[in-house]
Amino acid sequence: MEFTERGFDGATVRVIAERAGVDPAMVNHWFGGKDKLFLASLEIPIDPDQVIPALLNGPAEELAARLIRTFLTVWDVSGGGPLVALMRSVSSHEGAAAMFREFITRVIFGRLISALGVDQPELRTALAATQMAGLGMVRYVVRLEPLASADHDTVVAAIAPNLQRYLTGPLS
Amino acid sequence: MEFTERGFDGATVRVIAERAGVDPAMVNHWFGGKDKLFLASLEIPIDPDQVIPALLNGPAEELAARLIRTFLTVWDVSGGGPLVALMRSVSSHEGAAAMFREFITRVIFGRLISALGVDQPELRTALAATQMAGLGMVRYVVRLEPLASADHDTVVAAIAPNLQRYLTGPLS
Repeated sequence: MEFTERGFDGATVRVIAERAGVDPAMVNHWFGGKDKLFLASLEIPIDPDQVIPALLNGPAEELAARLIRTFLTVWDVSGGGPLVALMRSVSSHEGAAAMFREFITRVIFGRLISALGVDQPELRTALAATQMAGLGMVRYVVRLEPLASADHDTVVAAIAPNLQRYLTGPLS
Repeated sequence: MEFTERGFDGATVRVIAERAGVDPAMVNHWFGGKDKLFLASLEIPIDPDQVIPALLNGPAEELAARLIRTFLTVWDVSGGGPLVALMRSVSSHEGAAAMFREFITRVIFGRLISALGVDQPELRTALAATQMAGLGMVRYVVRLEPLASADHDTVVAAIAPNLQRYLTGPLS
């Protein structure tokens, strides 16, 4: 696949379309451009052009709670199956790990954190990723109770204060 | 494998030895019993009979820092390769996911947290697992900078306050 061979920056919609034998305009029409094609290839069921503004719409000190609620809503729908597949890909193929790095830094946490204007944005991005990847692992992949079937309010109450420190709190 | 078919509780050293065609006394001699055989089968390079007492030896309010330092020391040695293999197994086989659940609750976090005598031990165990599994994913599997190559002091300063809340702090 073009993304796994060249990474997000190296891949172009034109080459992806050529390799698939379709018109690049069709790729843009159906997938809405490279960002969304990239998410589709990772089977991540979100549209960042909707999710990012929605997450940023509200007090910055409650961003962690909104992020966790959105994460649970997105993945609970499918029972976490696509997230298990994503973790399997990321731990099986360096190309998928590289794509996931770019997803984290470019598509989701990087965009949220740069919008906050906080110090150490790269470290905060990586720290936020530890908490969210870990929540995904424990709830959907390892399915450890009580987190595997806890309701959203319980998960938010337990985890949002920690995630919020990574997003906007003092780091040391 | 006996563990993946029967889980930790159902597997016996006797049956494991029979299936391997060896004397059960040899399994106990070489692996030191079922706990250690289980860890060996998951390729987790720690001896809980040494690690747990060492982690508990010190102020409870610094347990998170000790736990993170131990985790980084154990996995940095191998560059994280066995941890990547573990994540791949856990996301590929339900049997491995079940074993990993038992590892978390029985061998590591469960033992640490029950020794602390805190409220909500099952929830704290699962929360601590989110942070440590997420750190493992980001540092060793996804290898996202700056966490992938940060020195231990930096990782501890950033993550220990969060993990400490899960272990001993107020949860809601």
